[in-house]
Amino acid sequence: MHSKFNDLVLETNQKKNRVQVCYSPALFPLYADRESIVVVADVLRATSSMCYAFEKGVRKMIPVSTVEEALEFKNHQDHIIAAERNGKIVEGFDFGNSPQTYDNVDVEGKVIVMTTTNGTKTISIAKKDHKVIVGSFLNLDAVSNYLIEQGKNVILVCAGWKNKFNLEDTLFCGAVVEQLLDSGHYTSECDSAYGAKELYKSSKDDLYAFLEVSSHRKRLQNLNIDSDVKFCLQKNITSHVPLLQGNHLVSASSLIEKV
Amino acid sequence: MHSKFNDLVLETNQKKNRVQVCYSPALFPLYADRESIVVVADVLRATSSMCYAFEKGVRKMIPVSTVEEALEFKNHQDHIIAAERNGKIVEGFDFGNSPQTYDNVDVEGKVIVMTTTNGTKTISIAKKDHKVIVGSFLNLDAVSNYLIEQGKNVILVCAGWKNKFNLEDTLFCGAVVEQLLDSGHYTSECDSAYGAKELYKSSKDDLYAFLEVSSHRKRLQNLNIDSDVKFCLQKNITSHVPLLQGNHLVSASSLIEKV
Repeated sequence: MHSKFNDLVLETNQKKNRVQVCYSPALFPLYADRESIVVVADVLRATSSMCYAFEKGVRKMIPVSTVEEALEFKNHQDHIIAAERNGKIVEGFDFGNSPQTYDNVDVEGKVIVMTTTNGTKTISIAKKDHKVIVGSFLNLDAVSNYLIEQGKNVILVCAGWKNKFNLEDTLFCGAVVEQLLDSGHYTSECDSAYGAKELYKSSKDDLYAFLEVSSHRKRLQNLNIDSDVKFCLQKNITSHVPLLQGNHLVSASSLIEKV
Repeated sequence: MHSKFNDLVLETNQKKNRVQVCYSPALFPLYADRESIVVVADVLRATSSMCYAFEKGVRKMIPVSTVEEALEFKNHQDHIIAAERNGKIVEGFDFGNSPQTYDNVDVEGKVIVMTTTNGTKTISIAKKDHKVIVGSFLNLDAVSNYLIEQGKNVILVCAGWKNKFNLEDTLFCGAVVEQLLDSGHYTSECDSAYGAKELYKSSKDDLYAFLEVSSHRKRLQNLNIDSDVKFCLQKNITSHVPLLQGNHLVSASSLIEKV
């Protein structure tokens, strides 16, 4: 009886997909397997901006690693260039990585070229061998549902801050881990996945208060962008899931609608 | 009034020492500053064994990175060689990294040469530019008191598992962070320190149950060393703090007694 039950549990787990969390882009080579779908999280603020840009009608986004690469798109028709370093808009650019920018400008049908301190670099590390999507609290449920539909192993990657662990990206990854495990389709043997899930559990009733101590929050407070922080901690205000196709992001949900 | 109070808080924080946590030896270069005291944690089981060995009368320990280096000490008088890889005693050696070994053999006055999968490698990474001590739940209070007495900045380094994050080392680091912050002598702007502290807070009433999900715990269960896990999760059964002097560890508390 005991062994039959254990065999059944084992068999069920073998059919499940695996979810892992990687706390730093610098550790990504330890997790990379060329098969998993990678979710990049840079919640404050790059990936929140990407998700919200699609909500506001952006057609395509081109994440690039360097300001120089971004500048190559200057004067391209319908292209807007967004460049952020150390939390600030890079001199000479109109857009940084604030999601609320997209409330003030008509971006319907436009292409956004974006470079940020951590988020776009993480995308470029992951894209070499993996299918990449972009996540944030703004599209939390949509990301989890997309992953469950795809039915593949998952690596959630925190963009962090200059390769260091940060709390906000970890909390988002923990939220996705919770949903994937609760779905019954996923299992995990990854300590960072359980750590992230536990931290999310401790914080989910008031993410903003929990992040009070966060070093990134302090950096952002110094930049007077507290309203962006509150904006980025809202859950499920969009169902767009930015998906990397070649070198640009499109909305996976609009792809599904088209089919 | 407001600004005077803020100035006072700022001034007080400036006088405090800083505590950081590094979740992987691979990330250590991001934290290294040549000034902080480094605490190496490989709770299951290398650093627990080191702490307990001193409790049982060992005079000196020599942590080495490779089995080959360990073998150089073969036939040295009063030297015992301990070698572990992937949780098992390396073939041809009598000792691995089980702390309970030291209950069964008279090690009074002996020298232990030790190489392990993660712990001794982390020591060798940290020792180049930093003062290094060794921590585990077995000497938790002693480590915190030692650090507070030294009055320097602190980097707690999790040995992890092959450069990946693990829960057990993180929980220990969280316990030390809690004690240092509670002492009033330390402050932190490090997200991983707050993450570790929060995870310890969630788990401290039953570390064993919390670690049920841990991947390392599962590995150890497969090796039938559950009694070692329970042993290593005991708090404060020794006041010895292993301190690296040159290439060997001595007990910092016995140094203090000698003075």
